[in-house]
Amino acid sequence: MTPTLAPLPASLPDAVPFVGPETLERQRGAPFRARLGANENGFGPSPLAVEAMRQAAAEVWKYGDPTNHDLKAALSAHCGCEPENLVVGEGIDGLLGLAVRLMVAPGDRVVTSAGGYPTFDFHVTGFGGELVRVPYRDDRQDAAALVARAAETGARMVYLCNPDNPMGGWHPPEVIEAAVAALPADILLILDEAYAEFAPALPRIDPADPRVLRMRTFSKAYGMAGARIGYAIGAPQVIRAFDRVRNHFGVNSLAQAGALAALGDTAHLSRTVARVAEARERIAAIARDNGLAALPSATNFVAIDCGGDDSFARAVLAALGAQGIFARMPWVAPQNRCIRVSCGSRAELDAFAEALPKALAAAGN
Amino acid sequence: MTPTLAPLPASLPDAVPFVGPETLERQRGAPFRARLGANENGFGPSPLAVEAMRQAAAEVWKYGDPTNHDLKAALSAHCGCEPENLVVGEGIDGLLGLAVRLMVAPGDRVVTSAGGYPTFDFHVTGFGGELVRVPYRDDRQDAAALVARAAETGARMVYLCNPDNPMGGWHPPEVIEAAVAALPADILLILDEAYAEFAPALPRIDPADPRVLRMRTFSKAYGMAGARIGYAIGAPQVIRAFDRVRNHFGVNSLAQAGALAALGDTAHLSRTVARVAEARERIAAIARDNGLAALPSATNFVAIDCGGDDSFARAVLAALGAQGIFARMPWVAPQNRCIRVSCGSRAELDAFAEALPKALAAAGN
Repeated sequence: MTPTLAPLPASLPDAVPFVGPETLERQRGAPFRARLGANENGFGPSPLAVEAMRQAAAEVWKYGDPTNHDLKAALSAHCGCEPENLVVGEGIDGLLGLAVRLMVAPGDRVVTSAGGYPTFDFHVTGFGGELVRVPYRDDRQDAAALVARAAETGARMVYLCNPDNPMGGWHPPEVIEAAVAALPADILLILDEAYAEFAPALPRIDPADPRVLRMRTFSKAYGMAGARIGYAIGAPQVIRAFDRVRNHFGVNSLAQAGALAALGDTAHLSRTVARVAEARERIAAIARDNGLAALPSATNFVAIDCGGDDSFARAVLAALGAQGIFARMPWVAPQNRCIRVSCGSRAELDAFAEALPKALAAAGN
Repeated sequence: MTPTLAPLPASLPDAVPFVGPETLERQRGAPFRARLGANENGFGPSPLAVEAMRQAAAEVWKYGDPTNHDLKAALSAHCGCEPENLVVGEGIDGLLGLAVRLMVAPGDRVVTSAGGYPTFDFHVTGFGGELVRVPYRDDRQDAAALVARAAETGARMVYLCNPDNPMGGWHPPEVIEAAVAALPADILLILDEAYAEFAPALPRIDPADPRVLRMRTFSKAYGMAGARIGYAIGAPQVIRAFDRVRNHFGVNSLAQAGALAALGDTAHLSRTVARVAEARERIAAIARDNGLAALPSATNFVAIDCGGDDSFARAVLAALGAQGIFARMPWVAPQNRCIRVSCGSRAELDAFAEALPKALAAAGN
């Protein structure tokens, strides 16, 4: 007899949402030439953010401010809302876990897309929720169908990622606004806007609407994935509830300082968005050069349709990996006919351009 | 009608375990002269750790390794165990939350001390556990009574902090080893060793014992509280279970780099421990100069018995705060006859020495 897990954790699978590139590098016994699999932003953070983190390093003996006061003040100006509409957490991953914990009791239904973000599914399963999956439509998460399915199934929560991961597409503001308008009064929409800064336009949503939590991050456009800092925008009564369960001193103090500086460097953000747009063009051109189609993207990655089924895409991915190119692919059919390539430096995309034809040949094209 | 919280979160109080000094500073409208309330380590991290974090800042666009491979390799050598015995997380606070989530279902009993660590209680309540509290004995957590009470009440988990927060005392290894020997086979002991590096000696516990999780942190002796990084040592089957619920990419990459460098700088750690010992002596001397008794401490703080009840201690604390000295006090009787003062720089302790007589006078001594 040994201490046993509580029934819910005991019932959970051992599966992990993502295997990190460092593990893959150890398995292959060599570093990757191109790190294009995790939608990281190789153009990097603002130099002002780097400098702020370096300055903050000497002060790391202090716990960070558990209220994230200064960052929330800056974010409220940035987002056009009040500090009471904001909660800062350890990236969107951390905030998703807390939101699920707050809303979902064992057996509650939660609606997401078939092939939506695996870490969200991990949290829902982890708190005993029952996932209801809606198919993608034209390679995009189907906003209207997600909301309709949530209403039909009496779900507590519905998840929508816009712009979309892993396919890269986006919905114009009116589509999201219509989905919000159609939301029943008692269902919480998690609108994952991790890639918001790359989108041509964003929906208008009243930050006081208790039915919506928008989530944003410093991991993507701001180039600070390793810092683990993101935020959610929502109604004050929803935001306050996070205080009941969050790890109050959980946000790294260097991340707080870096995020504050990054938010102020709008010129760097603009340059990043432009460089990402160029890199998307380049990835699309590489796809075309190999007779493949790149899907339209409003993110810092591009899904490339490999023109076969999931086994073929998986073989291409493996052959890329063998050549030192780290990429990933969508998780369910029909999206998993594609591979997903993050925007990176010219050198990394050169390596990808060189490796792709060989990978396609090796995969039996 | 609006989205409602799940029943368990809906039942939770709005109370927050600790108010941070930044909030208190905003309330008083001025910064503190001495930051001696949160058991932070003002002697600071190893310069090697600071340099490692500064180097890592430019690479912050990458997610940290979710397996914490390199740090776990170094920690396994440091702790004399295998990497399979280790889980790294966002400080002990984060690991406590995960451990409670893994073990405690609503209604399960968990034993801790009356006046033990509030953040642990926050997590137990947060997952619906029922706290059973054992009184302190001679100003220390009563190891034998805690284990006995856990056995009597059919608890799932028992918490013991050694060296002790908030009183500063410690148990020699044989007391902890006897408590472990008396543990029933199906009860998990959380041994919070946040202050381990300050202890004269630590117990021997088989890392493969499934009944014990030892928790350590880089927040105290290593001076990296803002980095949010700690670890737990336990049996592989218990450690593996964390993968079912943890935020896999949750540890900050700068924290990973800093912790690795800090672990290697044993000379800095020795200097810190010596400086902390000096500061403890100084705090005890200041207490004596004011006719008060300092309790023995094996930590980086000292509890000072103010010689009255909790109202008197609270008045002393308030009067210290009004003079710009941030300190805290224990949370329940009889420990809350004391104030708790963290070890700090000479300048900060000078400020405390100057302020204490006035605070005692103001409190009506």
